[in-house]
Amino acid sequence: MYWSKAFIPTLKETPQEAESLSHKLLLRAGLARMLMAGAYSYLPLGLRVLENIQKIIRQEMQVCGASELLLPALQPLELWQKTGRDKDIGEVMFKFIDRRGRNVVLGPTHEEVITDLVKGEISSYRQLPRVLYQIQTKFRDEIRPRNGLIRACEFIMKDAYSFDQDQVGLDKNYQLMYEAYKRIFKRCGLTVLITQADSGVMGGKESHEFMVPAAQGEDLVLVCKKCNQVKAFNTDSLLCSKCNFQMDKVNTIEVGHIFKLGIKYSQALGANFADAKGELKPIIMGCYGIGVSRLVSSIIEQNNDAEGIIWPQEVAPYQILVLPLDVTNSQIMQEAITLHDQLAGLGYQVLLDDRDERAGVKFKDADLLGIPLQVVIGRNSLVEQTIEIKVRSTKQKIIKPRSQAVEEISRLIVI
Amino acid sequence: MYWSKAFIPTLKETPQEAESLSHKLLLRAGLARMLMAGAYSYLPLGLRVLENIQKIIRQEMQVCGASELLLPALQPLELWQKTGRDKDIGEVMFKFIDRRGRNVVLGPTHEEVITDLVKGEISSYRQLPRVLYQIQTKFRDEIRPRNGLIRACEFIMKDAYSFDQDQVGLDKNYQLMYEAYKRIFKRCGLTVLITQADSGVMGGKESHEFMVPAAQGEDLVLVCKKCNQVKAFNTDSLLCSKCNFQMDKVNTIEVGHIFKLGIKYSQALGANFADAKGELKPIIMGCYGIGVSRLVSSIIEQNNDAEGIIWPQEVAPYQILVLPLDVTNSQIMQEAITLHDQLAGLGYQVLLDDRDERAGVKFKDADLLGIPLQVVIGRNSLVEQTIEIKVRSTKQKIIKPRSQAVEEISRLIVI
Repeated sequence: MYWSKAFIPTLKETPQEAESLSHKLLLRAGLARMLMAGAYSYLPLGLRVLENIQKIIRQEMQVCGASELLLPALQPLELWQKTGRDKDIGEVMFKFIDRRGRNVVLGPTHEEVITDLVKGEISSYRQLPRVLYQIQTKFRDEIRPRNGLIRACEFIMKDAYSFDQDQVGLDKNYQLMYEAYKRIFKRCGLTVLITQADSGVMGGKESHEFMVPAAQGEDLVLVCKKCNQVKAFNTDSLLCSKCNFQMDKVNTIEVGHIFKLGIKYSQALGANFADAKGELKPIIMGCYGIGVSRLVSSIIEQNNDAEGIIWPQEVAPYQILVLPLDVTNSQIMQEAITLHDQLAGLGYQVLLDDRDERAGVKFKDADLLGIPLQVVIGRNSLVEQTIEIKVRSTKQKIIKPRSQAVEEISRLIVI
Repeated sequence: MYWSKAFIPTLKETPQEAESLSHKLLLRAGLARMLMAGAYSYLPLGLRVLENIQKIIRQEMQVCGASELLLPALQPLELWQKTGRDKDIGEVMFKFIDRRGRNVVLGPTHEEVITDLVKGEISSYRQLPRVLYQIQTKFRDEIRPRNGLIRACEFIMKDAYSFDQDQVGLDKNYQLMYEAYKRIFKRCGLTVLITQADSGVMGGKESHEFMVPAAQGEDLVLVCKKCNQVKAFNTDSLLCSKCNFQMDKVNTIEVGHIFKLGIKYSQALGANFADAKGELKPIIMGCYGIGVSRLVSSIIEQNNDAEGIIWPQEVAPYQILVLPLDVTNSQIMQEAITLHDQLAGLGYQVLLDDRDERAGVKFKDADLLGIPLQVVIGRNSLVEQTIEIKVRSTKQKIIKPRSQAVEEISRLIVI
């Protein structure tokens, strides 16, 4: 892909609206733009990151035996009244009356809808267990949206739901998800703290939160430095329950939350199954959420330096940036295009900066964008038949004969 | 993929809500379920079809040099007031006031939003031409949603927008899109009629509609059987302007619509560029829509028989259905699993019907689902070391030695 065709509007200055570090870099690197507070347009580079994250999630959901579907954003208020959550969630849920006079809400989450769907399709223990998930846009009427994609009114979530006939089944699915979540966040290049958390408005007994430590994170957790225990912040006690040490407060961003829901939703909505003896029982449920768009910002929060973003390999919008330093020099451009085509042909995601800009501007933008490898082609490359590879994360510069360039790149980036 | 894991709830009976043929098959084949009138859940099989359609669209948009982005559903009403379309579109647009007191709409389309975005990023003729597109969920407050995915309140669209400095540029982008649309619909297995249409509420001068002839289609077009001219239905004259013949009325579904918008939006929203002489001019725009979710129903309308759906190869949810006739016979199952794994390993999308159902039920469901190839494995297969391949579209049955099965399949399905 050529930069000039890709619509990557980088910014030299930080827009005033930017509140946190990730928010600044999100805007400056041309990943997203604000339409109004809480609603963002994902530009091509940001969309590529989103898609890479979604690809990782889909692969790991497959490991959990989950099937993907897609539920509507528009939902009847009536379903929420049956579980009583219309009151629990309150004003955060967008509600309106449509032209047919129906009370409609914009789904902030989908427990009610999926339980209603499953109720119509599953009636026997033979059809259990079942795990379903979607990657979909959710809506929340936030009174104070902020930090770009971190607290938005419109955002993308992965929400999975498990349906089991007994607690043993739920425990098994829960454990599978717990392990999948650890892999997902690791592949996204994140260090997470996992807290045993309060289920709150979701109902149910057990739950875990996956929290990304970040300076601007709004969720506080407590960490014991002696035994590494993590718990949700609670003013009752700042002492570790294991070793009685004073725990440290850490600012974090919640990126995942898994719940053992039990029968709260199936009971309220009548989602029952006949067990082996023919007895009707409510289906036992779990739910498993990941803030997909929020992950983009969280990854930036944890992967950056003074120059810009440092994308972890699996989520990077491109893996390699080819940087011809003088696009008016036809030999340099030819060399750059040849390398671009060669790498793209091998399956790498390659961006070629074909802009007629000064080398300094290109280097700055390259570091800002944070693509893992920069391959620089200048006059020296022609004279000495070499290329320079810069590893964004370490700033290491490697000079290699042109003939060994692809081999060296394949050593640095595994696809 | 095993049927038992895939969540494919087929129905023997047609639900009462079903209005058209495609609507019936959509529900019976387990592709989608209604949450409320106008809002549908896509089940795994339906989502796979949607994704296949999206893949075709993305490939053809790339040919047009278009970059993908993703815009918000939530939009400020203010933008619509600037173009005056808040009044033109009227009550079909969902509108509400959020907790911050903002007048918000749910986007039924995105001309205003994309023009506002481009206004902020493009200022010079050097940045033109530019083509941007998204595949995204749109909302319309339909007073009478009907026919499943054909007229829904929530639906998926591909909307592309071109930005040019002059009419020549617009004409070129328009022509590229026109050709891409023909390829997209052909790859979806559709025969379309293309009418030169009225631009209506969109503004601009030239536009073409891509219409799928279908018994239940709500849009009428006129076709001249002598010269094949097609035009939008108009009570003024039913005569062909070329050969003066009486034209035939044809029921169709609109699946695509392309418009030369001109400067309506750029002028209203102030999206200007400086030309080579430094003079400020409004950007010249085109827009290009495809009803992605509506295509699912349109494809079914044109590709079916009394037994069920006949998916065109490129959009089929799976390409091959392996049908072991007796899953309690371990030799038959072993043979089926081996073939499934072998084909999946070669990159085919394979579904294995591992349900413990009578052969009659399986055959009926196989025809209902409409996967292009059915590979039947029964007792005969073991005795004679053969397999039977049924081509869904022609009902042709091919019996081949087991050793030649994969070769025969690769002849029938090209991936």
